[in-house]
Amino acid sequence: MRLGVIGATGYAGLELLRLLAFRSFDEVVLVTSRQEAGQKLVDFFPALKSLANYDDLVLSPPVDLEGKADIFLMAAQHGAAMSLAPSLLASGAKVIDLSADYRLRDPLEFEKWYGPHASPELLPTAVYGLPEIYGPQIKKANLVANPGCYPTSVILALAPIMRQGIFNPSEIIIVDAKSGVTGAGRTLQAGYLFTEVYDNFRGYKIVGHRHTPEMIQELSSLLAMKVKLSFTPHLAPINRGILSTIYLRLNVKIPLKDLYNQYEAFYQGCRFVRVRNQIPETANVRGTNFCDMALFYDEANDLFKIVSVIDNICRGAAGQAVVNLNLMTGRQEDCGLDYGPLRP
Amino acid sequence: MRLGVIGATGYAGLELLRLLAFRSFDEVVLVTSRQEAGQKLVDFFPALKSLANYDDLVLSPPVDLEGKADIFLMAAQHGAAMSLAPSLLASGAKVIDLSADYRLRDPLEFEKWYGPHASPELLPTAVYGLPEIYGPQIKKANLVANPGCYPTSVILALAPIMRQGIFNPSEIIIVDAKSGVTGAGRTLQAGYLFTEVYDNFRGYKIVGHRHTPEMIQELSSLLAMKVKLSFTPHLAPINRGILSTIYLRLNVKIPLKDLYNQYEAFYQGCRFVRVRNQIPETANVRGTNFCDMALFYDEANDLFKIVSVIDNICRGAAGQAVVNLNLMTGRQEDCGLDYGPLRP
Amino acid sequence: MRLGVIGATGYAGLELLRLLAFRSFDEVVLVTSRQEAGQKLVDFFPALKSLANYDDLVLSPPVDLEGKADIFLMAAQHGAAMSLAPSLLASGAKVIDLSADYRLRDPLEFEKWYGPHASPELLPTAVYGLPEIYGPQIKKANLVANPGCYPTSVILALAPIMRQGIFNPSEIIIVDAKSGVTGAGRTLQAGYLFTEVYDNFRGYKIVGHRHTPEMIQELSSLLAMKVKLSFTPHLAPINRGILSTIYLRLNVKIPLKDLYNQYEAFYQGCRFVRVRNQIPETANVRGTNFCDMALFYDEANDLFKIVSVIDNICRGAAGQAVVNLNLMTGRQEDCGLDYGPLRP
Amino acid sequence: MRLGVIGATGYAGLELLRLLAFRSFDEVVLVTSRQEAGQKLVDFFPALKSLANYDDLVLSPPVDLEGKADIFLMAAQHGAAMSLAPSLLASGAKVIDLSADYRLRDPLEFEKWYGPHASPELLPTAVYGLPEIYGPQIKKANLVANPGCYPTSVILALAPIMRQGIFNPSEIIIVDAKSGVTGAGRTLQAGYLFTEVYDNFRGYKIVGHRHTPEMIQELSSLLAMKVKLSFTPHLAPINRGILSTIYLRLNVKIPLKDLYNQYEAFYQGCRFVRVRNQIPETANVRGTNFCDMALFYDEANDLFKIVSVIDNICRGAAGQAVVNLNLMTGRQEDCGLDYGPLRP
Repeated sequence: MRLGVIGATGYAGLELLRLLAFRSFDEVVLVTSRQEAGQKLVDFFPALKSLANYDDLVLSPPVDLEGKADIFLMAAQHGAAMSLAPSLLASGAKVIDLSADYRLRDPLEFEKWYGPHASPELLPTAVYGLPEIYGPQIKKANLVANPGCYPTSVILALAPIMRQGIFNPSEIIIVDAKSGVTGAGRTLQAGYLFTEVYDNFRGYKIVGHRHTPEMIQELSSLLAMKVKLSFTPHLAPINRGILSTIYLRLNVKIPLKDLYNQYEAFYQGCRFVRVRNQIPETANVRGTNFCDMALFYDEANDLFKIVSVIDNICRGAAGQAVVNLNLMTGRQEDCGLDYGPLRP
Repeated sequence: MRLGVIGATGYAGLELLRLLAFRSFDEVVLVTSRQEAGQKLVDFFPALKSLANYDDLVLSPPVDLEGKADIFLMAAQHGAAMSLAPSLLASGAKVIDLSADYRLRDPLEFEKWYGPHASPELLPTAVYGLPEIYGPQIKKANLVANPGCYPTSVILALAPIMRQGIFNPSEIIIVDAKSGVTGAGRTLQAGYLFTEVYDNFRGYKIVGHRHTPEMIQELSSLLAMKVKLSFTPHLAPINRGILSTIYLRLNVKIPLKDLYNQYEAFYQGCRFVRVRNQIPETANVRGTNFCDMALFYDEANDLFKIVSVIDNICRGAAGQAVVNLNLMTGRQEDCGLDYGPLRP
Repeated sequence: MRLGVIGATGYAGLELLRLLAFRSFDEVVLVTSRQEAGQKLVDFFPALKSLANYDDLVLSPPVDLEGKADIFLMAAQHGAAMSLAPSLLASGAKVIDLSADYRLRDPLEFEKWYGPHASPELLPTAVYGLPEIYGPQIKKANLVANPGCYPTSVILALAPIMRQGIFNPSEIIIVDAKSGVTGAGRTLQAGYLFTEVYDNFRGYKIVGHRHTPEMIQELSSLLAMKVKLSFTPHLAPINRGILSTIYLRLNVKIPLKDLYNQYEAFYQGCRFVRVRNQIPETANVRGTNFCDMALFYDEANDLFKIVSVIDNICRGAAGQAVVNLNLMTGRQEDCGLDYGPLRP
Repeated sequence: MRLGVIGATGYAGLELLRLLAFRSFDEVVLVTSRQEAGQKLVDFFPALKSLANYDDLVLSPPVDLEGKADIFLMAAQHGAAMSLAPSLLASGAKVIDLSADYRLRDPLEFEKWYGPHASPELLPTAVYGLPEIYGPQIKKANLVANPGCYPTSVILALAPIMRQGIFNPSEIIIVDAKSGVTGAGRTLQAGYLFTEVYDNFRGYKIVGHRHTPEMIQELSSLLAMKVKLSFTPHLAPINRGILSTIYLRLNVKIPLKDLYNQYEAFYQGCRFVRVRNQIPETANVRGTNFCDMALFYDEANDLFKIVSVIDNICRGAAGQAVVNLNLMTGRQEDCGLDYGPLRP
């Protein structure tokens, strides 16, 4: 397959290129950047030198893309994909979009959080690219909306409970999430300078983060009832990783061990979910597509706590996109992704 | 005053010595260590060289302490103070204990979490050393139980609501806290090695942390009703700082602005509490006795979120002990503590 | 004294304000910023809230400064001071410049490294503000050029050898220095983003860093002969601290112990230099004005290695400026600076 | 091939297992640990769960190893291999030793730095496992001494100059190296606690580090004359990476561009050496077997500066061992190692 990476100079783009270097059967033939067009890829990212065919690639502007690749991986800012995708799809290409442009099925909800949509007619055709839930649909999709990083960590952690219907939707799910700084991309803002983040910890967007409706959409779909969820993100002074601590009450009395069994059954055969008895750590999934999770029960308060970790830029972006690429091209989900975490 | 620092070779001891170096009117005459006795203080802690009279101090074993100081600051492991304090108090000295030994008023509750108490008869006389709440009592105390780091951040963040009685005790307060690694002391465990913590994020003691009863005791006392609280600590890869994100529902409809007013009124005149409109960051209190807090309202879920930050080893341990020392010796609470955070 | 801080929104400005908050006898009456003028100081730097009179200060543009303060601390970008200082000095104020504008005595040398000088006539009157070397001159100075961070760490480490004349100037001094990221200020460049610096180590400006002529000027002055020095800076992923590892050969055979004695004699009575037998660590001077140093001898190669550490933003900038302020106003050098490092 | 990993619970062991998980054609059949014997591998290292056949492996004590594997990768402490290797080799197995036991060819030199050798008769048969220099010999070797991390970064950076003979051996080579903390292994010492390393920078073993003779042996061999070298290591607060800054004078006048050409010619066809015009950064080689290097010329001092970076635990230990494994088993050097760095 000829692959095009749109928005190759952000961190999701860099991670895509890292992961795609493994694949001898696909070739990255196109890398685009609005700001860095004309530069050699490996001059911009020296880390990629001597890998695959990357020494030969030159960043080009994201124009006249039709026909230049068979599958486009869109890693640009929110808003770029919804303008580019229609003509790419019309030209017969497939699109995996890592932005939020096609994640919300309801155009009104999209507009409320992100502003007007440039191609709302595509929303019904887009498949939400969470392989554990939508695997069969992804295999047949032409347009995949790669999930957000926070929603990936939260939806996977709650899917078994929602599918079992053992959550009472009158309760609020509380999600306290901590993300590494790559989650902000290469954004040039004072708040992301090393000196402002190192040896520091802070929350942000404490009310109203835009990943909230995505979580609610998918959890409600799994439960078949509208769920209420309050989401609070924090910035952890690490490069990669999201840890979500999730608090909820169930509508049944269920021993923790039985809940574990339900989780293991739900994720039976899922290569990249590891349900564990150990406390999850972000370093255990660094650089991989794994989602580790563990379950806890606070008996004094009849409260369940579910902790999940992913690598936000791999499982939460580029790695999940490669799984989707695998499924869309008839390969196994872990093709080219079957390696261990970099730890320490 | 002649001061004795018991357990001078831990991080709380080091921080005490850093803070006490400012005080020309008091003198540290005694520094003890079980393991390092015989060593010069500044050989063990080169950072302290040339400060105050520290070049002359030699670490001594924690025995025969009576009469050697007027006030003892106990920074040793849990369990040491409850054995040493009775005879020190009997000899006329005052004691500020930074461990958990005298924080819980109920001996049964203490035993449940920490094991048997060696001097339960002192529990009724110990004053919980949170100056904003117990200032008048501290001034007259001979034995002060310095609060735990997590409880300090949580109780201060909730005290105005509890005192106002606007919390419904049938609800659960959820506290998701993140602490820097100094919270674990200089414990020599593999899990606290640099390589195990750096670029990593994890929870620990996700159910049943021993600071929970301390929070419940004080919040229940403020509310005059038993509260329910679920506490979850995490280890953030930073040196200092606790950030607590607290989720709760109130039993009244109150605009956020009015709640802010109540907080400002409650903390009127409190030198070390800064109620703010900005998102708190641990770096803003680094090395100081400040507690910064901000209030948020998630309208969609009728949920309040309160975020507080402290420096766990200063406000959460040594700094608060120095405030208590100030109050017990008739000084202003901020005497020798009136400086700004080290940021960055 | 009425103090003015010019360029108050950089890290040197922030550190100055942190240190000046201690001084009840001086008052910061003026804080300027070109870009943030009109904003309240504590809105820009929430860390400073409730300190000294800072809640009342508003950032003003750096214009019409004459008469507004008795002493101006210039913490702006290189180039600002050389335009502002002439009229301030003419108006009777004193100036402590933290930039490089008045450090080089030779206007041609200045021009070579920094471009044309706007007030070269002041260069002969400026005193190089390294208190251990120029203390007497600083006391009488109206214009003090605060040394650069790297030069401070290097000149202090070599001054005893140079003054003793035991270095052979036909040899090259090799300085391999490592600096924390605050050395780059709050510069908004991609290379200083957290994600680009964290868990990373790199050199920069490996040949031709602008601090080189400053070191050569002062070391040559001490030796009374022109020295050759090759300086290589690196960016360490820490907030604060410079560690300089210096390699040189002496022109005499001298036992290490004797060299230690010479260093101790040279720095006799210098409050802020700690000559030690322990390996220096940047954390031991964090937030202080100390310079720690240790000496080593590689017998196999007849090579001396001198290691020095400072806090680049305190001793290497704001702290040293406060020492100079102390000396210029007749106070002891450690007035308001007599506290210990924040460690950990 | 059946592979045995001896000392599987250190960081080199963990990294070996990460890298070997890629290889479908080899199988790890044995993992040993003195202290953790009896435990399941993935219980000790949860990061490795679900990879290769690791879920089935149980740590065994390092006894009766003969016949249990075809190739043994020894990642235990210094001293273990020299006792175990003789009988393993005698039984027909091959050995790749990641410790220092077989790196020095001169038994007296070994004894001087490490103490008595248990199997000095094997020293002449051991091949120094630096593939760019000893590739042909490695292919035929039964016992490979995997190079030390520092020596790898230094020898590769200097090999072209030494081989060309353009260095004057009366001069001293100065090597100022900075290493991440994994270089210390999982050693449980207070100095490697997070709180002692984070936001800190220090040197260690400033004179007399044991990697010095290894560098001198190999550089002298390349130059065919004894070289003098002074080595100074530092501890950088990062997980992985070594950056070596090397200072030396050549005995010829050679333009930098020509020296670059010589380096490129020397490393022609070497998959894992990247000679570059950009300043090397440790993050550019994180998790890979690459060695990046760049050359600089300080004209004022006629001094060359060479900067090289490797990942100390990959290229400096486990990754290089896998290259050696590839060569010893007739595979291409980059087999299973052909992927990009994890950046950020």
